[in-house]
Amino acid sequence: MRQVAILGIGQTVIDEHWDKSLRDLTVEAALAALQDAGRETAGGVFVGNMMSGIINDQNNLGPLVADWTGLRGGDAVKIDAACGSGAAALRSGLMAVASGELDSALVIGVEKMTDRPMREVTAALATAADADYEVEMGVSFVGLNALIMRRYMYEYGWQHEDFAPFAINAHANALHNPYARLHQKITVEDFEKSVMVATPINLLDASPIGDGAAALYLVPADSLRGGTRILVAASAAATDTIGGHDRPDMLFLTAAYKSCREAYRQAGVGPEDIDVFELHDAFTIMSALSLEACGFAERGRGVRLGLDGEIGPTGRIPITTRGGLKARGHPVGATGVYQVVEVVQQLRGECGPTQVPDARVGMAQNIGGSGATIITHILKRE
Amino acid sequence: MRQVAILGIGQTVIDEHWDKSLRDLTVEAALAALQDAGRETAGGVFVGNMMSGIINDQNNLGPLVADWTGLRGGDAVKIDAACGSGAAALRSGLMAVASGELDSALVIGVEKMTDRPMREVTAALATAADADYEVEMGVSFVGLNALIMRRYMYEYGWQHEDFAPFAINAHANALHNPYARLHQKITVEDFEKSVMVATPINLLDASPIGDGAAALYLVPADSLRGGTRILVAASAAATDTIGGHDRPDMLFLTAAYKSCREAYRQAGVGPEDIDVFELHDAFTIMSALSLEACGFAERGRGVRLGLDGEIGPTGRIPITTRGGLKARGHPVGATGVYQVVEVVQQLRGECGPTQVPDARVGMAQNIGGSGATIITHILKRE
Repeated sequence: MRQVAILGIGQTVIDEHWDKSLRDLTVEAALAALQDAGRETAGGVFVGNMMSGIINDQNNLGPLVADWTGLRGGDAVKIDAACGSGAAALRSGLMAVASGELDSALVIGVEKMTDRPMREVTAALATAADADYEVEMGVSFVGLNALIMRRYMYEYGWQHEDFAPFAINAHANALHNPYARLHQKITVEDFEKSVMVATPINLLDASPIGDGAAALYLVPADSLRGGTRILVAASAAATDTIGGHDRPDMLFLTAAYKSCREAYRQAGVGPEDIDVFELHDAFTIMSALSLEACGFAERGRGVRLGLDGEIGPTGRIPITTRGGLKARGHPVGATGVYQVVEVVQQLRGECGPTQVPDARVGMAQNIGGSGATIITHILKRE
Repeated sequence: MRQVAILGIGQTVIDEHWDKSLRDLTVEAALAALQDAGRETAGGVFVGNMMSGIINDQNNLGPLVADWTGLRGGDAVKIDAACGSGAAALRSGLMAVASGELDSALVIGVEKMTDRPMREVTAALATAADADYEVEMGVSFVGLNALIMRRYMYEYGWQHEDFAPFAINAHANALHNPYARLHQKITVEDFEKSVMVATPINLLDASPIGDGAAALYLVPADSLRGGTRILVAASAAATDTIGGHDRPDMLFLTAAYKSCREAYRQAGVGPEDIDVFELHDAFTIMSALSLEACGFAERGRGVRLGLDGEIGPTGRIPITTRGGLKARGHPVGATGVYQVVEVVQQLRGECGPTQVPDARVGMAQNIGGSGATIITHILKRE
């Protein structure tokens, strides 16, 4: 297996892009990544997307994206792992380049969610859960996460406001990210007064959907001579039961633990070496659980990191430094690629007021379903 | 890159399985492949599927399948390339094993299509085409193929009945395949009298949809000692424009030509070395176009092979030897895996009355969209 480097990144602003189609967004992000990489072609195209078939009446995104980005002809597929699709697409592209099958790959995550009524989007999001044993019972995807959060609060004695720092940090960081959907500073009071969605999850616990696309250009590391290189030091995927009810303990992200442990092994690092961690804060509860599964906090103590001010850009473990899912936005199939784009920005030192000083090792973790698919990547600057 | 062998195969009968869910079908095929391989675990799960999100309200098939087949924990994703999803999943699993990333992989194609009204299935099938520039104009997926067939007949002077041998051969072969959906011998008269679907495509030009799952178990070839081995000698994917209208010539499957040529190169063979060819006969016209693009006939002369009796099990180029999409059935995301399962059966000599004598080199070609994604695999027995 060859070492792989990320040579180019691209992204669109996340918003309700009523004037741009799925293909427009894809082309915008892809061309930005190609330009950033200084390349005009790619050996293959790997598209991360969850719901284009449901919401946009469009499958077969591989050739569509290859066609419209001028990369027509070669390998091109779509990879779906629900909200984890972006990282799954990266992992597919990575294997293709690492194996020697391709000499370059363009990885694109895209989701166009705001053209349909919210009830349709809610139904589409629920396809990430178990249709026969969860959704059939009437639970939505937010509802599932609410059950987990409620149980966590009960088991460990936290109050709702203890989760506020995750949302406040994300919003504060997004103020400095021109690609973020929300540019709105929030306070603990805002957080507590926000409208309820599915108790105990209120609007400021939850990440907003959005339309957006992000892209990465991959090449073999040994094809780059001189200068700074951003290397993919680890890529690891793990899965858990699709239904939360089948897990012995819904408060521990087993797949996060497994994929993270494997990623640490591959990269030869531990939690103490991670300078920046773009985690999957679809809901504030997920920030706590991810931090715990990845070794940054004891079980039931993830919220403590927020309360102690350890998650900001200069804290012990900076998270959601560009706004995270919470404020940058969560175009579901694109999110995993946005996360890696943001880690690259940190390692390149391009993050302005939310730059983590001298960031050299960054981690991104993308989650599909309520913990069913979890994929961890570690990047290193050298 | 390591050479990869197919150690196990599994499949379900294709039918309207109103008593079996998507997960039931998947488990049945997966367990059959595991049993055939003599294995109980797999390093990763690669699921080919097109429309579960639309028709079954279920995405995130990777962990779902891994969970329910007892392969919980590792890599698991869904790959979509419309009707070419099955071969795309095989190609993903192949890269994972060939690269050394995984030491085994279970590839599963599954589609559960018959639980919804036909108008919904028709709409779902149309997501393989260009939503904005084709489907928006009112054309269905059958309609697109009808335009191609009409033009082919006009350009090359063929009559509708000249396509009959493709359907007759497929139906004759399916009589001996217990997994096939249709067991019904047909004649030229039946073919000509069949009800019109989208002129000139009538019911017997078109493949039936269905519910089904098929599976392959992959291992590194060098892990097998002694005995007969079925090797994956080539895997190649190519894409064309998503919209047929953007092609200079809709009567030539450029992506079939490209992927086939690359597959021949990898395997060190030519058309004359192929003992059996499982092609993508979603409509009779596609059989002609595939035979032409892959070097078995001159342009415009593909139908000649049928008329001359060259496509039967003892003909010059045996195709659809287990019934093809036409009579075995076309559960879209599963089809590409069924094709490879059938090539393995031929190379193992398990095909009874439709066995190709001493088949040693077999090819499978899977098409997504009206020629947008085309993936070719060549297997060898040694």
